[in-house]
Amino acid sequence: MYLVKLGGSVITDKARPLSFREDVVRRLVSELKPFSPLIIVHGAGSFGHVYAKEYGLADGFKSSEQLEGFARVQRDVRDLNMRIMNILIENGINAVSLPPFASCENSDGRLKSLDTAPFHRTVDMGLSPVTFGDAVFDDKIGFSICSGDYLMEALAEEFRPEKTIFLSDVDGIYDRNPAETGAELLPVISSSDSVSAGKSRDGVSDVTGGMAGKLASMVKIAPFSEVWMINGLVPGRLANLLNGETVIGSKVIP
Amino acid sequence: MYLVKLGGSVITDKARPLSFREDVVRRLVSELKPFSPLIIVHGAGSFGHVYAKEYGLADGFKSSEQLEGFARVQRDVRDLNMRIMNILIENGINAVSLPPFASCENSDGRLKSLDTAPFHRTVDMGLSPVTFGDAVFDDKIGFSICSGDYLMEALAEEFRPEKTIFLSDVDGIYDRNPAETGAELLPVISSSDSVSAGKSRDGVSDVTGGMAGKLASMVKIAPFSEVWMINGLVPGRLANLLNGETVIGSKVIP
Repeated sequence: MYLVKLGGSVITDKARPLSFREDVVRRLVSELKPFSPLIIVHGAGSFGHVYAKEYGLADGFKSSEQLEGFARVQRDVRDLNMRIMNILIENGINAVSLPPFASCENSDGRLKSLDTAPFHRTVDMGLSPVTFGDAVFDDKIGFSICSGDYLMEALAEEFRPEKTIFLSDVDGIYDRNPAETGAELLPVISSSDSVSAGKSRDGVSDVTGGMAGKLASMVKIAPFSEVWMINGLVPGRLANLLNGETVIGSKVIP
Repeated sequence: MYLVKLGGSVITDKARPLSFREDVVRRLVSELKPFSPLIIVHGAGSFGHVYAKEYGLADGFKSSEQLEGFARVQRDVRDLNMRIMNILIENGINAVSLPPFASCENSDGRLKSLDTAPFHRTVDMGLSPVTFGDAVFDDKIGFSICSGDYLMEALAEEFRPEKTIFLSDVDGIYDRNPAETGAELLPVISSSDSVSAGKSRDGVSDVTGGMAGKLASMVKIAPFSEVWMINGLVPGRLANLLNGETVIGSKVIP
């Protein structure tokens, strides 16, 4: 069993609202097909961020004006989910969507609990469950954002997949922001080393270029599953990794 | 609080696969708007029946070939749900979708349990939950169809709405198939009378024109809520009923 995250930066253009990278998703699905059934998580990318930011959803429920934003974010993210479901099903992956809204609860912006029973039943029947980052209820602040990375952590711990793979728009985790000159890809990161990779020398909390949170998720997953970050925009890389070949990417070890 | 079922015969053309009656739904949503938040259930109509029939989903899990049908039915029904969500949100009803797949379980083709907690939390926050008939897991036969009418029963018992309204493509429950000459609309049906309305004199189980099952659901709801069936294709009838006016339709009393 494999657990794969289709990152929001891969399946959408984060700079343009509601921009779905259909060709990229079609290619990734063709690479995943031989390994189905599997568990898929996807990010919200540019389908979730517009209204989430405009209505301040990440900071919790403060006024009833936000309810419109909550409804719109959920609607847009399910629009993205439907597009992915269509491509999965058209390509012979018998996928079913499990939106996190009904089965997970956040607490102060972090995933508190995920009901994994529907995932087990889906997998047991030979179907591929698909879930995604979304706006969900929060027992402390009313509602907040449940990121796809938190869902990856919970599902990896529950299912102990043979491989857990994060697809990104860069080659993996770097020793500094990959946009900087001289940035080097870290092919293997041990959980004890990860602190230096995720923290800055000069007070900036995320020198790896927005990857500190993802690295923290991968460190949490490492005890339960072989965990990788690879570039989802490079054709064949996902298929090669699933086939057990050596690929460019970062592996986090316990 | 009101509970309204948008019947599959109202929101789709049951004779043509995947035929969405967008204009009808737009009008109904404008009639519902002043009474939101409310709880909405919709049928699957011609979005659910094609693959459900082709793959025999109502009879349960018999072979892995059906998994494709299961995935396709779920996908098509969520496509219908998305279209309805779009119209609700565009018209200022802050609606969120609660697919039954994760929160309900069937047993031998009947709804066994529905987790109503997400519905309560949605309503408590001032949002309008929307659910729908769908293919779900079944503890006896693997999977089966959870009809919107079963969901109406469970939600009416849980929420005790002021009014529970079934929207149909006919004026209400008739004393025989409404297509027959001389068929008469039954404006008030007491639960004790309902047996004769729902049963045939000559062994045909549903002389009311496919309404016996719906009448049975209404009889179950009557102890908990004022329960009506009216014609959703006639403009203004829903708004008039919600406004407390006298309308053409059938009311089932305990």
